[in-house]
Amino acid sequence: MNVAVDAMGGDRAPGVIVEGAVQASAELGIHVTLVGNEELVAEALGSHEPTDRITLHHCKEFIRMDESPLKAVRHKREASIRVAFDLLKRGEVDAVVSAGNSGATLAAGVLSLGRIKGVDRPAIASIFPGEKGRVVVIDVGANVDCRPPQLFQFGVLAHAFAISCLGMEDPKIGLLSIGEEGSKGNEQVRQTRELFERSRLNFFGNVEGRDIFSGDVQIIVCDGFVGNVALKVTEGMAEAMTRLLRRELEGSIGGRAAFFLGRRPLKNFRRRIDYEEYGGAPLLGINGVAIVCHGGSSERAIKNAIRMAAQYVKNRILEKITSEMKALKEESGVL
Amino acid sequence: MNVAVDAMGGDRAPGVIVEGAVQASAELGIHVTLVGNEELVAEALGSHEPTDRITLHHCKEFIRMDESPLKAVRHKREASIRVAFDLLKRGEVDAVVSAGNSGATLAAGVLSLGRIKGVDRPAIASIFPGEKGRVVVIDVGANVDCRPPQLFQFGVLAHAFAISCLGMEDPKIGLLSIGEEGSKGNEQVRQTRELFERSRLNFFGNVEGRDIFSGDVQIIVCDGFVGNVALKVTEGMAEAMTRLLRRELEGSIGGRAAFFLGRRPLKNFRRRIDYEEYGGAPLLGINGVAIVCHGGSSERAIKNAIRMAAQYVKNRILEKITSEMKALKEESGVL
Repeated sequence: MNVAVDAMGGDRAPGVIVEGAVQASAELGIHVTLVGNEELVAEALGSHEPTDRITLHHCKEFIRMDESPLKAVRHKREASIRVAFDLLKRGEVDAVVSAGNSGATLAAGVLSLGRIKGVDRPAIASIFPGEKGRVVVIDVGANVDCRPPQLFQFGVLAHAFAISCLGMEDPKIGLLSIGEEGSKGNEQVRQTRELFERSRLNFFGNVEGRDIFSGDVQIIVCDGFVGNVALKVTEGMAEAMTRLLRRELEGSIGGRAAFFLGRRPLKNFRRRIDYEEYGGAPLLGINGVAIVCHGGSSERAIKNAIRMAAQYVKNRILEKITSEMKALKEESGVL
Repeated sequence: MNVAVDAMGGDRAPGVIVEGAVQASAELGIHVTLVGNEELVAEALGSHEPTDRITLHHCKEFIRMDESPLKAVRHKREASIRVAFDLLKRGEVDAVVSAGNSGATLAAGVLSLGRIKGVDRPAIASIFPGEKGRVVVIDVGANVDCRPPQLFQFGVLAHAFAISCLGMEDPKIGLLSIGEEGSKGNEQVRQTRELFERSRLNFFGNVEGRDIFSGDVQIIVCDGFVGNVALKVTEGMAEAMTRLLRRELEGSIGGRAAFFLGRRPLKNFRRRIDYEEYGGAPLLGINGVAIVCHGGSSERAIKNAIRMAAQYVKNRILEKITSEMKALKEESGVL
């Protein structure tokens, strides 16, 4: 197992990215290939003993967070994310992990590896820790202004992913909308609903934002614009609530005692709502395994994303998604 | 001050609605006109002593949560929400509060009272308790598939509202998108951005879902579809986190002790994230004061919404918004 990590991608790259990769290599025994500027990555590696499980692959350029993804990917052939996917294409690594510009990761992945047959647009799936189990939300930012057949394909991708990687059996799919009745929602939702109803997928119907936590469905399909807003709302809220809880508890003697006595359950609580535990989000629909991480990822998030990538390779996620897409294509006109 | 309450609107109407109205009347000294089926409302009033501050206004019909708003409002002339707005039009009451079908509330409000000059589509503004102060998100569900000039108008409405009712001075406006850079976001966002940049409003630029809590802007403008998803995500998450925190604390001896010692700060914490404290969301852009409540509102939420409505009437919100719209209309081509 060899996972290529875009050492130049992320708000605190390469330092934090390299540190996460070193931890993954040491703690999980995964071979990591750091793709980035040789000098900067070597500096970030610093005092860490180089091991035979860490390889440095030099490349000249990288893509900034604020660059236009398509343009940057086309023009910067030597950018770290492009080189990482080229390594995957040549079979030198088994998966790619990046905390860089997610649009560029998507574009580079499609350019190098191509899409799975039947997929118009690959999508990013985020796994939420619901009370009754995990909930997969797709797409959380790769695509805006989607057409209904594309939204339907997101559902198929997530279905195949949930079965092959999360061990779910026939997961229920919900379509994110603003009312549970079919008459509500926008035009995009109304048309997509029909496609799901005609398919053999376990379609639950429309769901609302609160269902990300209810556990009534295991998969929630939405446009990348809406999904990204939902994802960022949960992240912002988790951080704000953690700070607020701390402030309330620290403001009184009883609260401070509670804070002390309850430090372990409070820590568990924080961990449960912390997206860094989950590491990253799989990019589904390209011909290879890739994990997209939050730009602000910590070492721990990178380590967990590398673990996730290795698991998906072991689970043969790509073969499973490809065969599931093929089966659904044969019985549906929209793939 | 006399506030008409749609006694038939809400998941637990009329019982909970009537109870909230009785509390508002008793605790806040506000005259309440309960609009609904005489028999059912009288039954809900039950043992409560009728006072001279509670009036019952009978009407035959009501609109269910799952009805198509426009059709229902057109055909049911005797529906409680229509009668409530007719009372407002005739000057018999000063404001309307409803926890019923929000689309129907919007449609009935427009039909009875008309729109403020310069407003294509009225919108629902929700007030979020940010760490650095309140944040107004507009629209949270009245309109889907909005055109850019309509989104711009939402910003103007919220601007006038924030100044006249929330005491803000020149609030910063953010446009909800999926990246802070102008190149990101969908087509709707890109076009709306230009309108804000050309106006004299204090436009901050694009913001992300997490900024509902960051306090970097005081107003966030979005399509009603996206805004409603964001609103429901926060509600679902607040509930899930409260349950999760409780479960973690109750699972250990230290946690249970912490739960006991910290009961007051924990209660404060819960109250801070509880939307019922805020009561409801103003429907901005119609010629009158109306507050839209959550379908699942409790007595307390209804009471707080009635309080809110009375405050807005006292603050002469309608005159202020109307004159602000007029001023902005004169210097802008999009109103």
